[in-house]
Amino acid sequence: MSHGPVAVERWGVWEGRFAGPMPSAGHGGPGFSVDFDRDGERMSVPGFFDGDGHYLVRFSPPDTGDWTYRTRSSSEVLDGQRGWFTVTAPGPGNHGPVGVAGTFHFAHADGTPYRPVGATVYNWVHQATDLYESTLDAIAEAGFTKLRFLVFPQGGGHVEYVPPTFPFARTADGGWDVDRPDLEFFRAIDRAVADLLERGIQADVILFHPYDRGEYGLDGLSAEEDARYLDYVIARLSAYRNVWWSLANEYDQLERPDERWDDVFRQLVRIDPHERLRSIHNWIQLYDYNKPWVTHASIQNGWAVAEPGRAVLYRDAYRKPIVLDEIKYEGDTVERWGNLSAQELVHRFWLATVGGTYATHGESFLTAEGTLHIVVGGRFRGESPARLGFLRRILEEVDGTGLDPIDKWDDTTSTVGIPRRLYLQYLGRDAPASWAFSLPQGVLGERVELGDRYAVDVIDTWNMTVTRHPQVFTIDDVQRNSAHARGEVQLPEGQAIALRVSLVD
Amino acid sequence: MSHGPVAVERWGVWEGRFAGPMPSAGHGGPGFSVDFDRDGERMSVPGFFDGDGHYLVRFSPPDTGDWTYRTRSSSEVLDGQRGWFTVTAPGPGNHGPVGVAGTFHFAHADGTPYRPVGATVYNWVHQATDLYESTLDAIAEAGFTKLRFLVFPQGGGHVEYVPPTFPFARTADGGWDVDRPDLEFFRAIDRAVADLLERGIQADVILFHPYDRGEYGLDGLSAEEDARYLDYVIARLSAYRNVWWSLANEYDQLERPDERWDDVFRQLVRIDPHERLRSIHNWIQLYDYNKPWVTHASIQNGWAVAEPGRAVLYRDAYRKPIVLDEIKYEGDTVERWGNLSAQELVHRFWLATVGGTYATHGESFLTAEGTLHIVVGGRFRGESPARLGFLRRILEEVDGTGLDPIDKWDDTTSTVGIPRRLYLQYLGRDAPASWAFSLPQGVLGERVELGDRYAVDVIDTWNMTVTRHPQVFTIDDVQRNSAHARGEVQLPEGQAIALRVSLVD
Repeated sequence: MSHGPVAVERWGVWEGRFAGPMPSAGHGGPGFSVDFDRDGERMSVPGFFDGDGHYLVRFSPPDTGDWTYRTRSSSEVLDGQRGWFTVTAPGPGNHGPVGVAGTFHFAHADGTPYRPVGATVYNWVHQATDLYESTLDAIAEAGFTKLRFLVFPQGGGHVEYVPPTFPFARTADGGWDVDRPDLEFFRAIDRAVADLLERGIQADVILFHPYDRGEYGLDGLSAEEDARYLDYVIARLSAYRNVWWSLANEYDQLERPDERWDDVFRQLVRIDPHERLRSIHNWIQLYDYNKPWVTHASIQNGWAVAEPGRAVLYRDAYRKPIVLDEIKYEGDTVERWGNLSAQELVHRFWLATVGGTYATHGESFLTAEGTLHIVVGGRFRGESPARLGFLRRILEEVDGTGLDPIDKWDDTTSTVGIPRRLYLQYLGRDAPASWAFSLPQGVLGERVELGDRYAVDVIDTWNMTVTRHPQVFTIDDVQRNSAHARGEVQLPEGQAIALRVSLVD
Repeated sequence: MSHGPVAVERWGVWEGRFAGPMPSAGHGGPGFSVDFDRDGERMSVPGFFDGDGHYLVRFSPPDTGDWTYRTRSSSEVLDGQRGWFTVTAPGPGNHGPVGVAGTFHFAHADGTPYRPVGATVYNWVHQATDLYESTLDAIAEAGFTKLRFLVFPQGGGHVEYVPPTFPFARTADGGWDVDRPDLEFFRAIDRAVADLLERGIQADVILFHPYDRGEYGLDGLSAEEDARYLDYVIARLSAYRNVWWSLANEYDQLERPDERWDDVFRQLVRIDPHERLRSIHNWIQLYDYNKPWVTHASIQNGWAVAEPGRAVLYRDAYRKPIVLDEIKYEGDTVERWGNLSAQELVHRFWLATVGGTYATHGESFLTAEGTLHIVVGGRFRGESPARLGFLRRILEEVDGTGLDPIDKWDDTTSTVGIPRRLYLQYLGRDAPASWAFSLPQGVLGERVELGDRYAVDVIDTWNMTVTRHPQVFTIDDVQRNSAHARGEVQLPEGQAIALRVSLVD
């Protein structure tokens, strides 16, 4: 079999299909991987059984040019197959996978900054097609740039719906045979990732979770079974450039020693040839995000953005991007994790932003069916998604790697930015009637100089307006920790206001 | 030489003195260490040259009973000397060295809780005797339980005084010969540690610092020279049970890669037979306190206790005791690190306390001589030390390992405690006129039950009074996240008030 001269985009997915022997129950398939070569560059990519006597390999080429491949397997028929294909320049909208940039931020492989404004629908992929699609549309229309969802379906807890497929075939004694993945189930996961990719949304794939409630027992697989599943799901999904690995939601509810999670991370590092982003999400106890295999901190803690000045502390502790992947939800549940007002949730996103961190949305109004948007998805009822789409726009207008606290030891003005060039200051949900021009000065990086000239945009974070103030401000007073210009900006008093202050060249 | 039947207390210092050859310039002395044995228990303790043709070894026996020893050296005269001595039960006030207890707290080896209420006088030990002694008296009288001070003298920066001795002899070319320690210098350090020990104060010994300003060049030793110095100073001091190792003050001002500090930590672990506490103090960038050789986080960040709800985040990040070893100082300097009011500094200590963390004091009123208390010491001028002595008393009255946040995800009441048994709630610097009885309930640990009865003490943190409220409160309403009793406590409105709520058996 030779796929040349089929062409694939750089950072796209090249898929090869090869005939091979059926995997056997309890023993799995033959080892199967493919070496891809180009000018001395080699990537070894694990393949996987895809039913019907066929094995697939998915490879996302990191560079343009002609690539050759050679299969490797303990099965004679699968081993030693060769071919080649051409990798072309990326098409429009393909900026490559997201990686860490500037210590605390993210960028695509081509350098385009990526700013997470995330959403959460845990059982999105397990729902009937109509609901699945309306969720996808809602997320995309709101402008979210990342979606967190579970691979394993949730059992109970606002979930009445039993999905039509499960990840594995059953064993004779009612357990799960992790060596016989259910192809329909995993193809639905593939499709979910691909659907997000098509819409430019990162797929934050949650590999394990504790929400089984004794229903399915997928939280009770052994470490060895987990590892087999991981081999499989990583081989299927890793080639999609929008994949992020989230080892678990609320990992510490699973009551496993941290060492078991360390091992899962190590396995991920070992088996994922595309080196997608890796993190894990907590309940009560934070995982140690300083461990070398963690690419960014994925933290649940609404408290960290309930007031200014908190989230920034996580940056110092981890020196990695901080994504606050659960800060409580907009909704009306009795439990306090699910009854934020839209105004409060939007406020928290802005506090995350001016802490130099990122946040993730979820909606939890109790529906007539007794469920929540975060659990099953659908259209949004809440008022925050539109405002978060607006925040996304503001973030995308930042020309630079990302926004960092200017004076983190004394950030009394809640200001982030790029020293001297750009400042974003958040005045909170109850802005004063006017603002006297003043900028903080940090210890590191460039400083505002006498004579520097700035334009000021008044950003109404709730009403979604950006209003340029007519005056250009000229710095006439530079202090050790601040810089000032004559003049005031009138504000819509009592509104949730941010200011964008930009150096005028 | 045989020291028996000389007796020494458990956790005391047993010192042996042995004749040996002079160390040679550039080559150091012969290797010299002593093995101590008791019933199959062995500790190998490094010795050190103490001048006049003699070597010392200092050993702090961890257990009572008869110990034998045997010297080891490449020098024949120093090698193979044997003896024995008896270790008796600890005397009054000797609770053993301090270690980590309950993840976030400290206790002496005999189980007695230890609560850091620290002070800071960087160049204490380098001052003339009068000043040195008045500092010691001031620290002890105020009731501080820990003192941070430098081994190497500071060069410039509020320091006019050039100390009479330096740590090493000079080389011919004006450098430092780290193999020829100045004995007068190091004996002064010994004495400082012993003087603190006598007063029950922990010695937070700062091994390196960046405050040289080109004066002495002690910040410019090579990694190899630093290591030789470390061998020496650890051998001299480690046997004192009140020693803590602080690798550096504002380590990141020294602009060395983290790996060099990692190596210093590794050396400490290797050479310190008594395993004293180990941390490092930051300027802009935090060291990774999750690294296994760090026993507690020693953090500079006043911002973390400028408002409630911040310091607690460090606990989650590190799962180790958090000691905020610089939160700005009480004083009147122009720089913002040194001009807190006494009220504000005391307030920050209370915020540290209700964040489940500890803090450290420093005073920085500019003196007539152009210096500061944190630099040279002396009597206190400030008003905070008395209030911190009062806080120490409150902490010592806690019957338990330490105070932990009750509801860290939503700590809107700034409450720490021991679930069900004891609560300390801080109402801030501007207390309301009354407080309606209410306690938060956490997710983990014991919960307040219907019918539980509580006494309430009103603590005036500034006026240093504790007033027991006459009513005993009986819980009559238990919610998921709180518990309530009928009744109100009248408060001194506008004062800095804390409440202590204790279960009545």
